[in-house]
Amino acid sequence: MPFAPFDWIDDEARRRADAGLVRTLRPRGAEPELLDLASNDYLGLTRHPEVTAAAAGAARRWGAGATGSRLVTGSTELHAELERELAAFCGFEAALVLSSGYAANLAALTALSGRGSLIVSDAGNHASIVDGCRLSRAETAVAPHADPDAVAKTLRGHEGRALVVTDSVFSVDGDAAPLPGLADVCRSANAALIVDDAHGLGVLGEGGRGALAAVDLAGDEGVVATLTLSKSLGSQGGAVLGPARVVEHLVNTARTFIFDTGLAPAAAGGALGALGVLRREPDRAASARGVATALHARLTAAGLTAARPDAAVVSVRAPSADAAVRWAADCRTAGIAVGCFRPPSVPDGISRLRLTARADLTEEQITAAVATIAATAPQEAFAPVG
Amino acid sequence: MPFAPFDWIDDEARRRADAGLVRTLRPRGAEPELLDLASNDYLGLTRHPEVTAAAAGAARRWGAGATGSRLVTGSTELHAELERELAAFCGFEAALVLSSGYAANLAALTALSGRGSLIVSDAGNHASIVDGCRLSRAETAVAPHADPDAVAKTLRGHEGRALVVTDSVFSVDGDAAPLPGLADVCRSANAALIVDDAHGLGVLGEGGRGALAAVDLAGDEGVVATLTLSKSLGSQGGAVLGPARVVEHLVNTARTFIFDTGLAPAAAGGALGALGVLRREPDRAASARGVATALHARLTAAGLTAARPDAAVVSVRAPSADAAVRWAADCRTAGIAVGCFRPPSVPDGISRLRLTARADLTEEQITAAVATIAATAPQEAFAPVG
Ligand SMILES: Cc1ncc(COP(=O)(O)O)c(C=O)c1O
Ligand SMILES: Cc1ncc(COP(=O)(O)O)c(C=O)c1O
Repeated sequence: MPFAPFDWIDDEARRRADAGLVRTLRPRGAEPELLDLASNDYLGLTRHPEVTAAAAGAARRWGAGATGSRLVTGSTELHAELERELAAFCGFEAALVLSSGYAANLAALTALSGRGSLIVSDAGNHASIVDGCRLSRAETAVAPHADPDAVAKTLRGHEGRALVVTDSVFSVDGDAAPLPGLADVCRSANAALIVDDAHGLGVLGEGGRGALAAVDLAGDEGVVATLTLSKSLGSQGGAVLGPARVVEHLVNTARTFIFDTGLAPAAAGGALGALGVLRREPDRAASARGVATALHARLTAAGLTAARPDAAVVSVRAPSADAAVRWAADCRTAGIAVGCFRPPSVPDGISRLRLTARADLTEEQITAAVATIAATAPQEAFAPVG
Repeated sequence: MPFAPFDWIDDEARRRADAGLVRTLRPRGAEPELLDLASNDYLGLTRHPEVTAAAAGAARRWGAGATGSRLVTGSTELHAELERELAAFCGFEAALVLSSGYAANLAALTALSGRGSLIVSDAGNHASIVDGCRLSRAETAVAPHADPDAVAKTLRGHEGRALVVTDSVFSVDGDAAPLPGLADVCRSANAALIVDDAHGLGVLGEGGRGALAAVDLAGDEGVVATLTLSKSLGSQGGAVLGPARVVEHLVNTARTFIFDTGLAPAAAGGALGALGVLRREPDRAASARGVATALHARLTAAGLTAARPDAAVVSVRAPSADAAVRWAADCRTAGIAVGCFRPPSVPDGISRLRLTARADLTEEQITAAVATIAATAPQEAFAPVG
């Protein structure tokens, strides 16, 4: 037998090509060439001079890397400061910083469940939550999207530890989870509530304090938030926020915390810099929401089908995966970067353009973007008239 | 029923306290106060001015974050350059950069196996490999440590896709995997070989090209390497190296690649800076190995039980978990930082001090470190005489 342990890969690649589902990397240059409606830089902070200076200064002062896992040599006073600041800003007792939002979800879900527990997970949850459930060895029940009654029914009858997990703002469609309803259900069932606020931090709540602060659930003793530092905070990394005992428990048991190198100082510094700007300019949060609302209103007025945005993500329906890819490509040719979500990255099989509102988009840019998106839209993307 | 979904955490905390197994974070300052024999900064590059300048410059030029997942807006020309440079340096056709070494292992193991495949995993493998096996939905067989014959036996009779995965240098004891033997076994069984070179890159092989280059397996069509950028390269991030078709397959299917924000530019820049220094000063690799050999020889001469180092990790046996913790604390009081590994972080239940050799440790520092470690050692740590 010839030595060819990866030949099966070619078959899969052919199948992907036949289905028009090949993904390719397209590295960009340092200077923005396109109007960006595709990134998650909701507050326009990733290139803010104060944020990049904070990142650069941290690299120079603390070194390019953390040098070890957080429990060995990888905890600096910069990490501790970021943890205090994140907890204070979002209204939680304590915070733990990890190397990514993905790692934060894996850490929270595995450390807070385990064999014999039940996790009830929304059908639209992010891949990192799904992977956290898979890693946890808990029984996982997938609940219908945004349906507290269904969650309550699933929890009923379960003995032992239970937790409910949801995105605060769903990354594909931009809709918000029914957090107050879920919190009530959790309280009745004595279940913990874990909320991934990746797309809420910086956008929802007073001054961008997040989806849990917005509904007065931040700091609740049964509530844990997971965050990413890579979207509104324009940097890299993740965090878990909750009661101090939960954070201590993660320090002692979460594998993606214990066995992972600490977050690079530059990323911690950049996130701290972004939090500083946001504290000083709290209106950025409302601006991002306002831009999203404007995008939605004008796209709908142009006859396209867009979901009403609860935060800064605006999702526009495309008639097919092929059409979505062509549409996004035509936008790009016309100078606008938009996201394109299609199977298998969409839970419901519906392809979309995904637009992200940036707080710093101007009226002119919004107008230009909507005009381009409408002009390049496939005919079937327009809702039938009448 | 009172709402207290986290009360069970207090019970676990008490049990940990009773067993003397509580872990606490100890943030350090910006200026090193201790002689560092605990970090994984094997080449002493994390605070190298060229490396920190490269990290800082990248943050200023490209922004504090990558702004999106690699397939949307998170791929920059800096990421592409780092991928070309890593592949070229280590002798592979292609490379893919991820946000951590942990994510790289999860990506490689899940994307290259799947239901119906078999993964044979060394009993001493890193937590991120274990988690990758758990996430993969493949059948996982744990093979006795460093035993190619046992691996061959496990592969025999399996129909369908198979892969063998091993650390190149085991993180706890610092011993090297029998890579040539494993490669032979894989070749006979048409199985892929995945090698986590976290502790080999920068230390093993000519000029630090890694464990696979050292035994002429780099670039082999059935071999994949996973790397971290956070140890010898002094930064943050991870990579998967292999045939171009493997990298393309990961781009299309690996969840921890697709659904994770791209590595921060500062981390990519720092790693590129470190590779540049290493290319120019290839002797750093041999120096790190030399320091490890010297540490081992002198600790053994002092009567302590240390494993012969195959790379830059020197592991010294402690009589118990308690004794190891006290020993490490006494070293710290005397000005030396050493790692302390104890259950549940050690596969065999044996507690150790874990020393890491840094290429830039001076003769004087080595002497001082050994004197301190011997002076603070518990009596039972010395091998019986005669
Ligand atoms: C809802 C959600 N959770 C978690 C993550 C992962 O965060 P990170 O990119 O920091 O790993 C993302 C996006 O990347 C996300 O959209
Ligand atoms: C053998 C091994 N693999 C993988 C990792 C994970 O790499 P990273 O810290 O970049 O996530 C580590 C250490 O952290 C390690 O020691």
